[in-house]
Amino acid sequence: MKGTIALLTDFGESSPYVGIMKGVISRIAPGAQVIDLSHAVPPGDVKRAAFELWQAAPYFPASTIFTVVVDPGVGTPRRAIAVRWKDRIGVAPDNGVLTYLLLTSEPPTIVELTSRAHRLPVVSSTFHGRDVFAPMAAHLALGGRIEDLGPKIQRVERLPLPTLELVEGPCLKGEFLHADPFGNLITSIGSLHREENELLLEPWLPHCSPARLDWEGLKVALPNGARLQLNTTFGDVPMGEAVAYIGSSGLLEIAINQGRAADALPFQPGQEVELNYKG
Amino acid sequence: MKGTIALLTDFGESSPYVGIMKGVISRIAPGAQVIDLSHAVPPGDVKRAAFELWQAAPYFPASTIFTVVVDPGVGTPRRAIAVRWKDRIGVAPDNGVLTYLLLTSEPPTIVELTSRAHRLPVVSSTFHGRDVFAPMAAHLALGGRIEDLGPKIQRVERLPLPTLELVEGPCLKGEFLHADPFGNLITSIGSLHREENELLLEPWLPHCSPARLDWEGLKVALPNGARLQLNTTFGDVPMGEAVAYIGSSGLLEIAINQGRAADALPFQPGQEVELNYKG
Amino acid sequence: MKGTIALLTDFGESSPYVGIMKGVISRIAPGAQVIDLSHAVPPGDVKRAAFELWQAAPYFPASTIFTVVVDPGVGTPRRAIAVRWKDRIGVAPDNGVLTYLLLTSEPPTIVELTSRAHRLPVVSSTFHGRDVFAPMAAHLALGGRIEDLGPKIQRVERLPLPTLELVEGPCLKGEFLHADPFGNLITSIGSLHREENELLLEPWLPHCSPARLDWEGLKVALPNGARLQLNTTFGDVPMGEAVAYIGSSGLLEIAINQGRAADALPFQPGQEVELNYKG
Repeated sequence: MKGTIALLTDFGESSPYVGIMKGVISRIAPGAQVIDLSHAVPPGDVKRAAFELWQAAPYFPASTIFTVVVDPGVGTPRRAIAVRWKDRIGVAPDNGVLTYLLLTSEPPTIVELTSRAHRLPVVSSTFHGRDVFAPMAAHLALGGRIEDLGPKIQRVERLPLPTLELVEGPCLKGEFLHADPFGNLITSIGSLHREENELLLEPWLPHCSPARLDWEGLKVALPNGARLQLNTTFGDVPMGEAVAYIGSSGLLEIAINQGRAADALPFQPGQEVELNYKG
Repeated sequence: MKGTIALLTDFGESSPYVGIMKGVISRIAPGAQVIDLSHAVPPGDVKRAAFELWQAAPYFPASTIFTVVVDPGVGTPRRAIAVRWKDRIGVAPDNGVLTYLLLTSEPPTIVELTSRAHRLPVVSSTFHGRDVFAPMAAHLALGGRIEDLGPKIQRVERLPLPTLELVEGPCLKGEFLHADPFGNLITSIGSLHREENELLLEPWLPHCSPARLDWEGLKVALPNGARLQLNTTFGDVPMGEAVAYIGSSGLLEIAINQGRAADALPFQPGQEVELNYKG
Repeated sequence: MKGTIALLTDFGESSPYVGIMKGVISRIAPGAQVIDLSHAVPPGDVKRAAFELWQAAPYFPASTIFTVVVDPGVGTPRRAIAVRWKDRIGVAPDNGVLTYLLLTSEPPTIVELTSRAHRLPVVSSTFHGRDVFAPMAAHLALGGRIEDLGPKIQRVERLPLPTLELVEGPCLKGEFLHADPFGNLITSIGSLHREENELLLEPWLPHCSPARLDWEGLKVALPNGARLQLNTTFGDVPMGEAVAYIGSSGLLEIAINQGRAADALPFQPGQEVELNYKG
């Protein structure tokens, strides 16, 4: 059984570049399974790619090789790395894209991808997905170890973490992260789970502690002063109205029932949002 | 040999949600083949999804597991079902999306997807594709039976069927269904096959009888009063002109040679179209 | 081990037609691997499809079956063909789409795809991808020979080749080919490789000879009279400025750092571009 490679890129759906990477993988590791995680990361958006990896990874098989080509620094001296933590492997440029995956890990094993034997003979300055990342991932899919691919290094780049705080009140402070493809606004507040009349917080970010809050009376405070009831799903409000709910990754989200919150509401990534009992 | 899963969703090409469903399938049923039927169904368009299933299903392997996530009712009490008919299986929300697939079938076996052992441990209120449909389909791909997944039920939701009538004249009455991605206008009139100087009708909808009509003199009557010759393919008319022909699914279609009929012609889904000998 | 089929079409990402072709392949050749090369070739753009095949093919496994459905002549008497050269196979309409793949080959073996036993029982006039090309490719993936699929023929259609000339000066004359999905302008000048202070030309088109030029002083002469330094990658110029570099296929490309050259620069396919020492 060959390993599974999950591919995440910002190449878009209208290029042959993903197909070429799959050709390279198939030539080196015939029969390896390649799953497209997404190729629609906004170009160069490392933070968004890091989030999508965090969101998707728990649902993939053990020993999946997450291979990421969101690489605005291609052709500059940024490093290419492979990282192993728990039973997972990441292959990516060293630009912070693995930040969220590594949040809760023991110190991972990290190597710099320098082995000439495991990349294509000619490495272009603009397409490392084909020339470096695909062949390195294919080697791992064949059962190779990341230690074969280059020397160990001590640390990887990390992105700054979003705001997530439990403060007196009690009150959960967080921020808007981005709009998903349906225009729903994702916040950093989570992971949240409802349990009868309580809201459980098991923070996805390590700088916050778990907590239990009363469900009753909790409201979402938006940057424009509006306050929303916390609901269960879109259909809990009339069509066209804003709704706050716990999304499928356990994060607080703001949507418009049958609409696009990203177009209707003026909130930007980084703006503060709260879950509190005021007013 | 694992089963084949054909995936049809309205998630679009720019989200990681399809990739996450494939991760779930791959974890439960390693080696199962997943074929993307389409992820570009217009959001929530159950009727369109039902049509695309009908159009595609005959070309898939026996025992394909058609897994559909076009589910505007997610989070409401709508049921999730699995259906077995002939050698095929459907896994879908119970919203009528299997209507056309089941048109010509013996009464199918239907179960409601309630087994907690065969869905993910936590079921979100917005992403049943990941939490219910993917794991249930994966279980079937492993060789499981739909009876494992929940109790039998007696009936599924059905969509109203489009107009298709053979009336005196003779005349075939039908309606516009939708525009395909190339802007060609698909009608309900079919399945049609030309055989020398005759047009054979083997209706795809059960409320109409088979018939043979003379090819000579048959014309398409459009809602705006225009009449078109029935032709064989786009190139039978000059560039930029409207052409009526029998499409690849056997249905009467209206196109513009090298153009987009959906933009040039003002016809709406549901408007009547005829194939007749008048005038 | 079944063969690998690489699929290249102009069906776009929003149709079920690619999924239907995969259903047909899977039914005939269960377990055959299908890799999507691209489905975003501009509709009917045979020249662009020919280029993408040339660009991608070297990275695919030996004996890959390149299956192309960019077929503006479907329904006309154009032939459908299979071609074998070296260890590769192409399955395509006979419209020149294999031109660049066959540039450097010994005379290939060519057959016309006429075998009724290897296509679907009913062949529509508009969807030969489903009815002819997919089943023929699946037969080859099962280990069949192209000679099973129809009679040998002597020649295939060929596209006119782009300009690529080494003239006195020395000077390399070429032309703009197209914009890639990122808006970078691809030229016919290549394949180029830098080796220390020299630029090596190993022409991808047979009507030009290999050469070595001094790197120092080489400039790109654009159709509007502007001259650009030859650089290594986007980041070698400030954001928003034009940059000339050797792209990942070895061809001279013109880009805007962090921008879209195709929008900012008024050059059309076919316009002349030079690499020279003048001025």
